[in-house]
Amino acid sequence: MTRLFNDPSDFCEEARLGVVAAHPDKLMAVPGGVVRSTRCAEGSVAVVIGGGSGHYPAFSGLVGQGLAHGAAMGNLFASPSAQQVYSVAKAADNGGGVLLTFGNYAGDVLHFGQARERLIKEGIPCEIVLVTDDVSSASLEEIEKRRGIAGDLTVFKAAAAAAEAGATLAEVVAVANEANRRTRSFGVAFDGCTLPGAGDALFHVPEGRMALGLGIHGEPGISEQDVPSADTLAELLVEQLLAEIPEGIEPQGARVAPILNGLGTVKYEELFVVYRRVDELLRKAGLEIVEPDVGELVTSLDMAGVSLTLFWLDDEMERLWRAPANTPAYRKGSVVPAEAIDPVELEQALDRDIPVASEASRKLAGSTLQGLEILVETIDANAEELGRIDAVAGDGDHGIGMQCGCHAALEAAREALRRGAGAETLLSFAADAWSDRAGGTSGAIWGVILSSIGESLGDQEAFSAQRLSAGVSAAASNVMSFGKARVGDKTLVDVLVPFAETLAEHAGQGAGNAWTAAAVRAQQASEATAQLLPKVGRARPLAEKSLGTPDAGGVSLSLIIRALTPLIKACD
Amino acid sequence: MTRLFNDPSDFCEEARLGVVAAHPDKLMAVPGGVVRSTRCAEGSVAVVIGGGSGHYPAFSGLVGQGLAHGAAMGNLFASPSAQQVYSVAKAADNGGGVLLTFGNYAGDVLHFGQARERLIKEGIPCEIVLVTDDVSSASLEEIEKRRGIAGDLTVFKAAAAAAEAGATLAEVVAVANEANRRTRSFGVAFDGCTLPGAGDALFHVPEGRMALGLGIHGEPGISEQDVPSADTLAELLVEQLLAEIPEGIEPQGARVAPILNGLGTVKYEELFVVYRRVDELLRKAGLEIVEPDVGELVTSLDMAGVSLTLFWLDDEMERLWRAPANTPAYRKGSVVPAEAIDPVELEQALDRDIPVASEASRKLAGSTLQGLEILVETIDANAEELGRIDAVAGDGDHGIGMQCGCHAALEAAREALRRGAGAETLLSFAADAWSDRAGGTSGAIWGVILSSIGESLGDQEAFSAQRLSAGVSAAASNVMSFGKARVGDKTLVDVLVPFAETLAEHAGQGAGNAWTAAAVRAQQASEATAQLLPKVGRARPLAEKSLGTPDAGGVSLSLIIRALTPLIKACD
Repeated sequence: MTRLFNDPSDFCEEARLGVVAAHPDKLMAVPGGVVRSTRCAEGSVAVVIGGGSGHYPAFSGLVGQGLAHGAAMGNLFASPSAQQVYSVAKAADNGGGVLLTFGNYAGDVLHFGQARERLIKEGIPCEIVLVTDDVSSASLEEIEKRRGIAGDLTVFKAAAAAAEAGATLAEVVAVANEANRRTRSFGVAFDGCTLPGAGDALFHVPEGRMALGLGIHGEPGISEQDVPSADTLAELLVEQLLAEIPEGIEPQGARVAPILNGLGTVKYEELFVVYRRVDELLRKAGLEIVEPDVGELVTSLDMAGVSLTLFWLDDEMERLWRAPANTPAYRKGSVVPAEAIDPVELEQALDRDIPVASEASRKLAGSTLQGLEILVETIDANAEELGRIDAVAGDGDHGIGMQCGCHAALEAAREALRRGAGAETLLSFAADAWSDRAGGTSGAIWGVILSSIGESLGDQEAFSAQRLSAGVSAAASNVMSFGKARVGDKTLVDVLVPFAETLAEHAGQGAGNAWTAAAVRAQQASEATAQLLPKVGRARPLAEKSLGTPDAGGVSLSLIIRALTPLIKACD
Repeated sequence: MTRLFNDPSDFCEEARLGVVAAHPDKLMAVPGGVVRSTRCAEGSVAVVIGGGSGHYPAFSGLVGQGLAHGAAMGNLFASPSAQQVYSVAKAADNGGGVLLTFGNYAGDVLHFGQARERLIKEGIPCEIVLVTDDVSSASLEEIEKRRGIAGDLTVFKAAAAAAEAGATLAEVVAVANEANRRTRSFGVAFDGCTLPGAGDALFHVPEGRMALGLGIHGEPGISEQDVPSADTLAELLVEQLLAEIPEGIEPQGARVAPILNGLGTVKYEELFVVYRRVDELLRKAGLEIVEPDVGELVTSLDMAGVSLTLFWLDDEMERLWRAPANTPAYRKGSVVPAEAIDPVELEQALDRDIPVASEASRKLAGSTLQGLEILVETIDANAEELGRIDAVAGDGDHGIGMQCGCHAALEAAREALRRGAGAETLLSFAADAWSDRAGGTSGAIWGVILSSIGESLGDQEAFSAQRLSAGVSAAASNVMSFGKARVGDKTLVDVLVPFAETLAEHAGQGAGNAWTAAAVRAQQASEATAQLLPKVGRARPLAEKSLGTPDAGGVSLSLIIRALTPLIKACD
């Protein structure tokens, strides 16, 4: 089980800060994930990977020379948001375009897709290659529906080695697709993992039994049997993969790179015992083995399971597979030492262009900044009380997290306004700064709220009650989609959704009136939520807490809404 | 729990073969463990590490350029035998002498010490440095009694980097001692590990509780408390280590290399969450952090636990810590690629000198070879039956393992005789070949039996009943010490001990008479053991099975003894 955490909702963000602290020579934190802290060749393609957290070394542990340029890191087993992917890709971009590559899961496909659109809109060429190596997740006829598991590594490695060698984006895409076509995996599981703070595992496999083809998030497998001996398991894994050799490959004399991957609690010696037999069987089948990997390469927290991947090589793939790499968790060969990036320089390089805004939107941006100032004052004045409320169900740091985030947002917004930003751009700067500095789910959610409203306000239009209301509705919907909470889950959503609904109902009566009515509704909802506070401590499972420190979150949202009323009235 | 194994008694040997199969570019198997498969500078010091198996990457995963030259690999949580250590050290020797360095445990101290004596006797300079980093295992006043845990790594790394840079043995010893003096660790545990085939964990910590200072083999800790938050644990670990800064180091501005080590099922993200806070605390204490390591560096199978190590650096230690390394599990910087060793060449290099033997001992060696021929015939004739017996309690491969081992032993003995060996040397060649080729505990035990008898016979003396009897007694005692089995555990010891006793009793009546009497006693014991065969399969815990496939082992020993009777009579 997962035992070591603070507030479970901060687990992923704290792990992200930890992996960067442990590997400053390789990684630096950027909003939404990590990028290399070493310099890349100007004009080279950036390979950006990512997915849910909980799978280390996927994905942050695979960032570094010879492998990925950046990793977008979502919540536990949850896709990163489009904004997170976008932000990491922007930071990783070397001027040669971006390949986004990741395992084929619906949420990832959606969010990486949105990020791609945004990058292209900004003139950064961007392509997507999905990894679909898990043979048990769909039939050969529906190969494109297969999930990505440990075969992620071969696709990332081949694509990144090609990028490192100076290939164009189109060439890197072709390499990644070909690597995916040549990669097959099959996994088994003995037991599920436990999320931080959860009372029980995500799923169980009956004691002494083994589930075949079970996914790394507990997706259903194809069958179940007794746990076999190590040798019998090796035979089963090899048999499954030799039954489906990718088209056009003659098995006799073929070269393969095998990856025997432990999911978390199948330990090294066990993996080596199994690999000993895998190695024998592959040789018996007439295959030549090239640089095998045996270890923990895609985990699922403390899940008990193992998968075998075969990467069927040709000359090009073998060269790319053998190329040196130097990341926190994956190193081979000897890389030419790369120059470290000065963090200040990266920050400057990341300094975003300010899109040209209309006079009206620049005026609105000024009012928006005032709104952020009010927000900051409100949080500062209530930080202690928010902490006290949060201490009932959380760890009492909600006030501090909010202060940290909103001050950073205000600072970024001031800078944007100084540079002539419209309302959308100003809120986008503020959103990124908030989610980056505050960390945790609460920070990410405030980033989603601000950027959703900003997108509705735009950089060209003047203020209108309709645009404001549409922005708040989008915020409510995006927060639910991001945090997977619904009304009634006792989170900030319980306040945000009725507020957005009331605002939309009354938008025809002018922003001031609509806001006043909606603020009353928000306060009622906040009080109702506060009364539902359970008396339990930090042991609540993450699923119930996926919106950070939710009860205090609803209270602070309601306080902010009320404080903003005079400003909104003045905008009318 | 440990789920993937074949015969539990073959677990370590199969894992050893697996780690070599997975890393042929770095490791090669030699009797007793592994050595680098890459060439080292002629005349450089060899750093040989080792200990029980079950702690991967300690010890085989730490062999390679910039780190250890060889690792002696004992059974699960059991010291390697003196013969294993000796054999690995011989193979690792580059002509510059050998440093044996390992964690301070009684069994290791004994066996590495014996190996050192043997190496020195053969003219290979050899020194020992114990690692004693675990602050909770003894007080500062008795610092030399402390156990070695994850701090192994800093001592190995510093010593090996010095050796790589051309230091003499005396200099490498000084570096290793100084690194040990500057290294402190403190560990906690949440639950114990399960040995392959065992029904339950070695030990348990109550659910929700944490044992402080508990050893990596379950040695008692110093206290117990509720599992704290990740940050509180970080504070506890740092506090323990800052309370005992090695003498002469001024904490303000001091440099440390921290190692946050997971024992098996505390996973990466948890370690990073904890490390994030460790990093903050060390900086707050005014320390400069140099190349931290966060991961699984010394495990105990699937034990749940974590330890923090601080390596207090000076200029020399920092340089050694930062030096490049390239091993299966530990890589930093970029090593200069090393030439691969041709395995044939290593085998030739390992070709042992034949000590000058007396005419009498060369004659005895001829008879001994005849004895081995009889042994091989006996095993070949009974292999199928032995497999059948073994299938009742084991996996039925006892006959095959014995055949494999004894044929290799016979071949090595023939070669030794051809080169003029006396009885001791001939049996020593045979012993090494048997334990190497057969693998598993059964192979190691037959190695112990042959070499014990050989040592008693010597290379100078003529045959005598007393020398033979003394050799058999030594064999019985060494096998018990190696396998930890006693009479009554239903293993080969049940046959060997009464045989040795009867032989000793009757030695005064001449070898033939004594052997005949003892053979009868052996057969009785073997039959008694066979009747006790339980009807359970492979689920018996390892502790009961520590002598391989023991029941069949007793039967085969008794068969061999009986078959040798005419030859012994002829020697009289």
